[in-house]
Amino acid sequence: MASDIIVFRYGHRHVRDYRVTSHCCLVSRAFGASKTYVMGETDEKILRTVDEMNAHWGKGAGVEFVDGWRKKLSEYQKKGYTSVHLTMYGTPLQEVEKELAKKDKLFVIIGSQKVEKEVYDKSDYNISVTLQPHSEIAALAVFLDRVQAGAELGKKFAGAKIEVEPTQRGKQVKEYAERKK
Amino acid sequence: MASDIIVFRYGHRHVRDYRVTSHCCLVSRAFGASKTYVMGETDEKILRTVDEMNAHWGKGAGVEFVDGWRKKLSEYQKKGYTSVHLTMYGTPLQEVEKELAKKDKLFVIIGSQKVEKEVYDKSDYNISVTLQPHSEIAALAVFLDRVQAGAELGKKFAGAKIEVEPTQRGKQVKEYAERKK
Repeated sequence: MASDIIVFRYGHRHVRDYRVTSHCCLVSRAFGASKTYVMGETDEKILRTVDEMNAHWGKGAGVEFVDGWRKKLSEYQKKGYTSVHLTMYGTPLQEVEKELAKKDKLFVIIGSQKVEKEVYDKSDYNISVTLQPHSEIAALAVFLDRVQAGAELGKKFAGAKIEVEPTQRGKQVKEYAERKK
Repeated sequence: MASDIIVFRYGHRHVRDYRVTSHCCLVSRAFGASKTYVMGETDEKILRTVDEMNAHWGKGAGVEFVDGWRKKLSEYQKKGYTSVHLTMYGTPLQEVEKELAKKDKLFVIIGSQKVEKEVYDKSDYNISVTLQPHSEIAALAVFLDRVQAGAELGKKFAGAKIEVEPTQRGKQVKEYAERKK
């Protein structure tokens, strides 16, 4: 299983994409990635949302806005990350997930608006999650779930002030006076 | 594996929720549900989006807007559907997915704004996908993927005018002069 996963969100339009990009960042965090890059103009509201999540629910992937994708992709490829671009046109996930699950480090690119052809060419893998149009949020979640074989579902986040106590009915949480180690 | 899955989106605010609700509807369709109900004022734009998808990419779950949740939940429970409410406070999915995968028919409720306590009480199961706050779109996708053991990933949609031909690089589609059976 990958020792590190980075998520790169290709494209973010200010205001218009706030909720969808937020969902991407929160999925990246909840499903165990260590960092989320968002390509686009810095959106303070998204940074605040994710920072607050990390402050309350424990330390997970933070967010950084960047201008372009080429430098980051090349930087992580040089560091030994396998790059995977999620697209409905790619190789079906189920055909390569075992191979991908063996990679030590993953750099996962998810689109929003139209993605340049060069992203398809420069990524090590182009992978589809179903061959139907749906949602980059859903594709990211299923991809992260499958390449980690569900290990992320029970992940504990260090430094949590609040944690869910699973229950069959209603809501139960544990709150800590000090941050949990 | 379930012979039928219905998705119920609890809550939709006109305009503001357009994109997130659309993603829910498209995930429901792409991951093999047969119908999506959305609780809220009818949003013609969402109906058009999903109708166009079904016209081009093959027949999957259509969308219907409804006023409330009680009638639909009770109607489907009477028809023998097992109801599952996805919530970060519920029983972890990985603990019950085998049991759920054996159910013949599923009625899956996903929230948006705050969900009434009664939904927790009346659902047969309250299930969490990770114990962290993230996205109902992601929770729905991972849930549908796991209870169907990935069978939905290769699903073919009848009546498609266009289909993806998976490829390692770029985009390839097949277009049909007549709708595919």
